[in-house]
Amino acid sequence: MENKNIAIGVDVGGTSIKGAAITRDGKVLDVFSLPIRKVGEQDQTMKELVDLINQYLKDHNLNKDNVLGIGLGVPGAIDVDAGIILSSNNLKWFDLHIRDIVSEGTGLPAKIMNDANAATLGEARFGVGKKYKDFIMLTLGTGVGGGIVIDHKLYTGNKDKAAELGHNAIVVDGEQCSCGRRGCLEAYASATALIRDAKRMMDAHKDSLMWKDEKVDGATAFKYAKLGDKYAQEVVDNYIKYLGEGLLNFFNAFRPEAVILSGGISKEGEYLTSRLYKYCKDRQFGFRCTPPVEIVVSELGYDAGKVGAASMFFE
Amino acid sequence: MENKNIAIGVDVGGTSIKGAAITRDGKVLDVFSLPIRKVGEQDQTMKELVDLINQYLKDHNLNKDNVLGIGLGVPGAIDVDAGIILSSNNLKWFDLHIRDIVSEGTGLPAKIMNDANAATLGEARFGVGKKYKDFIMLTLGTGVGGGIVIDHKLYTGNKDKAAELGHNAIVVDGEQCSCGRRGCLEAYASATALIRDAKRMMDAHKDSLMWKDEKVDGATAFKYAKLGDKYAQEVVDNYIKYLGEGLLNFFNAFRPEAVILSGGISKEGEYLTSRLYKYCKDRQFGFRCTPPVEIVVSELGYDAGKVGAASMFFE
Repeated sequence: MENKNIAIGVDVGGTSIKGAAITRDGKVLDVFSLPIRKVGEQDQTMKELVDLINQYLKDHNLNKDNVLGIGLGVPGAIDVDAGIILSSNNLKWFDLHIRDIVSEGTGLPAKIMNDANAATLGEARFGVGKKYKDFIMLTLGTGVGGGIVIDHKLYTGNKDKAAELGHNAIVVDGEQCSCGRRGCLEAYASATALIRDAKRMMDAHKDSLMWKDEKVDGATAFKYAKLGDKYAQEVVDNYIKYLGEGLLNFFNAFRPEAVILSGGISKEGEYLTSRLYKYCKDRQFGFRCTPPVEIVVSELGYDAGKVGAASMFFE
Repeated sequence: MENKNIAIGVDVGGTSIKGAAITRDGKVLDVFSLPIRKVGEQDQTMKELVDLINQYLKDHNLNKDNVLGIGLGVPGAIDVDAGIILSSNNLKWFDLHIRDIVSEGTGLPAKIMNDANAATLGEARFGVGKKYKDFIMLTLGTGVGGGIVIDHKLYTGNKDKAAELGHNAIVVDGEQCSCGRRGCLEAYASATALIRDAKRMMDAHKDSLMWKDEKVDGATAFKYAKLGDKYAQEVVDNYIKYLGEGLLNFFNAFRPEAVILSGGISKEGEYLTSRLYKYCKDRQFGFRCTPPVEIVVSELGYDAGKVGAASMFFE
């Protein structure tokens, strides 16, 4: 019998499910991908996922003799102990016993965890997070996810429901958030919010260079801000301000050594982090004796979730 | 030589310094009190404090043979390791080596910690916090202080600068806060903010019952809201809303088992907590699977800081 140094990590996203065999030292082998063609069809999607994993295992000579198990990072409101996605508003999945379906379908042990926590755990164990004792992570994508590491360990709170850092209201009665409240950080700092704000600016200013692109996405405002479009610059400045206010809130609460940014918007890299750092440094609480918080970009990128989920088996 | 089961706990507040001998099981003996007659006179105040502690020790037959040491909970920006108050904006104290002054003046070991952390530690070890593995504490007084307990331990972050929960911006560009930012929870949920809002309401409505009292304080709006004054009720409703939004932010980030309220406003007790609980329960993130957070009032009240500070010697 071989040494078991491999686990399968699966990241369930809003538009596709991606997975790979992950080695004990965090190496990502061949990635498989399953598009989610239609939301709401949870049984069909699970059947396709199980078939795909079984095919992947067969193709790579992986089986219960050399694989520790399958770790799944999943979205929505979940019950970790029961292995259930209770409710995913984006995917329209409800009471989905995803852990047992995957485990029974493949003959391998399976575990689930919150998707943002999985990405945070990946960074903590194998990415830029290794350097820090205490850090927080923010995923800036369709929504804003969060993760918290305290003393090198993931902090998940009561029933694993902590670290919903996107749902920190920074403007009471502000923009509507997907969670039901108004004014959450997610409603200002997600890619969705950035696209909304770019479109509003474009509607008000038909001479903006942002009109040149066929489609507005999370990169549009940044692209034309760099090209000197003053309207795009205003959108970006505003984005920095609101995200900066959210970061300051977390800095004052956690005083971590660093915040790690991931997700689509984090691809702006230094252009984004240097501006955020300046915004926060000028406004941080506690005068000269408060240590500034490093603002860095995820090292593992989109692999973080898969690696973190798999690493549940590397205890 | 007697068993050492006593430490002195000292709580440095904005208008007075209070202290007492504290037993290892959290009992508070005779309390001494020193009014701070004039801010800015740190040397004179320290001299008076040392004299008062020495008198107290003598009166109670306490000395280095039966006292473990003196724990001080102090406000402002501090350096715990160096034992220094770097800057207290309220007291106008700067670079005050309070630990060494007290230690050298009394011949006893001394330690300092942040005042809100001291109160939180007191509740965690000897108060209502004993019941909870993870909780947060908010002191609703002149300002809004915070404390965080994770896994029964005080979480203080990098250089002890975490848990500044009053400085969570809930209204970007909102009311001016003492920390330099705008829109912090402190600028809406402190007694200072409540008094400001009551006065604004009174100025707009000369028929408010709140005009009956000679002086407006943190209890005024609550008192007349209970007596049916619609203007006072509006002030209280607004206070509940903003404090509730702040609590929801912390619930989503930490998902603690409970929040403990202390400070002057917490004296409103059930009237306050039941309204806050309802506000939060209706708006919490995570649907039916998210455990609600208990909202309770401090058990030790104004003793929490002294007890917590002394307990630094009960490791």
